[in-house]
Amino acid sequence: MTDTTHPLDAALVLETNGEGLYGGAIAQSYWNIAGPFGGIIAAVLLRGVMDHPARRGRPIAQTANLCAAITPDPFEMRVRLARDGRSTQHWLVELMQNGGVAATCSIVTGPTRETWAHQPASPPPMPAYGGTAVFSREGRSGWTTRYDMRFERGSPVNESASAEKPGSAETRLWIRDEPARPLDYDSLAAMADAFILRLLQVRGAFAPSATVTLTTYFLASEADLAAVGTAPVIGTADTRAFAHGFHDQSGELWSADGKMLAVSHQLVWFKE
Amino acid sequence: MTDTTHPLDAALVLETNGEGLYGGAIAQSYWNIAGPFGGIIAAVLLRGVMDHPARRGRPIAQTANLCAAITPDPFEMRVRLARDGRSTQHWLVELMQNGGVAATCSIVTGPTRETWAHQPASPPPMPAYGGTAVFSREGRSGWTTRYDMRFERGSPVNESASAEKPGSAETRLWIRDEPARPLDYDSLAAMADAFILRLLQVRGAFAPSATVTLTTYFLASEADLAAVGTAPVIGTADTRAFAHGFHDQSGELWSADGKMLAVSHQLVWFKE
Repeated sequence: MTDTTHPLDAALVLETNGEGLYGGAIAQSYWNIAGPFGGIIAAVLLRGVMDHPARRGRPIAQTANLCAAITPDPFEMRVRLARDGRSTQHWLVELMQNGGVAATCSIVTGPTRETWAHQPASPPPMPAYGGTAVFSREGRSGWTTRYDMRFERGSPVNESASAEKPGSAETRLWIRDEPARPLDYDSLAAMADAFILRLLQVRGAFAPSATVTLTTYFLASEADLAAVGTAPVIGTADTRAFAHGFHDQSGELWSADGKMLAVSHQLVWFKE
Repeated sequence: MTDTTHPLDAALVLETNGEGLYGGAIAQSYWNIAGPFGGIIAAVLLRGVMDHPARRGRPIAQTANLCAAITPDPFEMRVRLARDGRSTQHWLVELMQNGGVAATCSIVTGPTRETWAHQPASPPPMPAYGGTAVFSREGRSGWTTRYDMRFERGSPVNESASAEKPGSAETRLWIRDEPARPLDYDSLAAMADAFILRLLQVRGAFAPSATVTLTTYFLASEADLAAVGTAPVIGTADTRAFAHGFHDQSGELWSADGKMLAVSHQLVWFKE
């Protein structure tokens, strides 16, 4: 690693302690006030599978369950191939820290195939990246400064919203890694969680909340990602319902020319 | 079990062979041509957790990974509490058959809490249940006959669609168990997968395809489900993209009076 190593790549370096056994720590560069950015945990869990010598192909689907607060302490990660099939491999990952399981994860990998394709959905109309106001990094800290975000609507700062008069849960933005970095599955896995929790935007104030489980489907092939390169992508996020201390959230990531790269869903715990 | 046991309840009877160790077989009543209905597998995996003596509360989230073809042979199921927290428990389940892992699953459970609530989304406008044409069970077989389905739009039979001229991926329907059965988490887990795979509807013809991974978020409390009782619920399903041999699919289940009960997402493999 050199001084020019991108913070994301630096955060995804694992120590190999045997087949499917890894060690590491969640990089401080992707932290926030309360703990690490869920997206960096997802990317670390994915890296364990991608580093496994038996892994074939690319990530297709990932579900990361964030079971407990993660600390800056070292973690151990165990990766196991649960089932090896012709078109897919099913992986299980457990991340252990301080004597307990802090995260579990299932990942599906497989070779990219060329098949019939059809895209019923399309990204929202967006102003040009260059013409969209930069979300100032001034006053921000932690992982949010790792992204260049430009909100068309639904910035997390919505002072007119409150619990009594909830604001919209919808967000549309341009997003790319900061500094710029060619898009790959590592960055896509992290970016799929870069939509700030809807609860904050809708209620207009900070409230204790945390991702419980995060599922991402990677629809882009390696070639689709190479075509994006370091360009910004379009992101959308929304919530259907907040009820009984949980809310759902769905996010989409699109190339500027309208190709769906990934879709991500999560369930978020909130205190009250 | 008596002759009046509902087929769903009959399909979810597990043999307990030790703490977290269960035996069973996927009921023929929820089969289709190629294998069992994914929803019944999800419900069986969930039942293993719900039957565990250490389980607290209700299902909150589930991800079931269908790793290999399941046969009518007996299966063994192992359920493990990966992490026990104050507001949530994180469970891992593996279903073994014929010497290999056929399905893996993560489930989050927890007690129902009363909190701030808000529902930005709403169900689509629907004609009355009684005024919507019944999807004839004539000529149908297997699991689809276990549901009373009444399509407002997006019936799986779309003869005007083809791979060259894809039809809409959207479905809106009324759905309930057949025979009628009070809605609970068992039936909700199964029903969340009762949206016929979008590929068939969009291309207007059968094509080899299978659910790879299915995630359901249970937003309804026990009281919300009791309020539904045996009434039909509103379902919607749609797909964003078909690419590289996979397509995503999202489905929503709503009470007739507009409360979101569950949202479900899946990634589907297709051959070509």
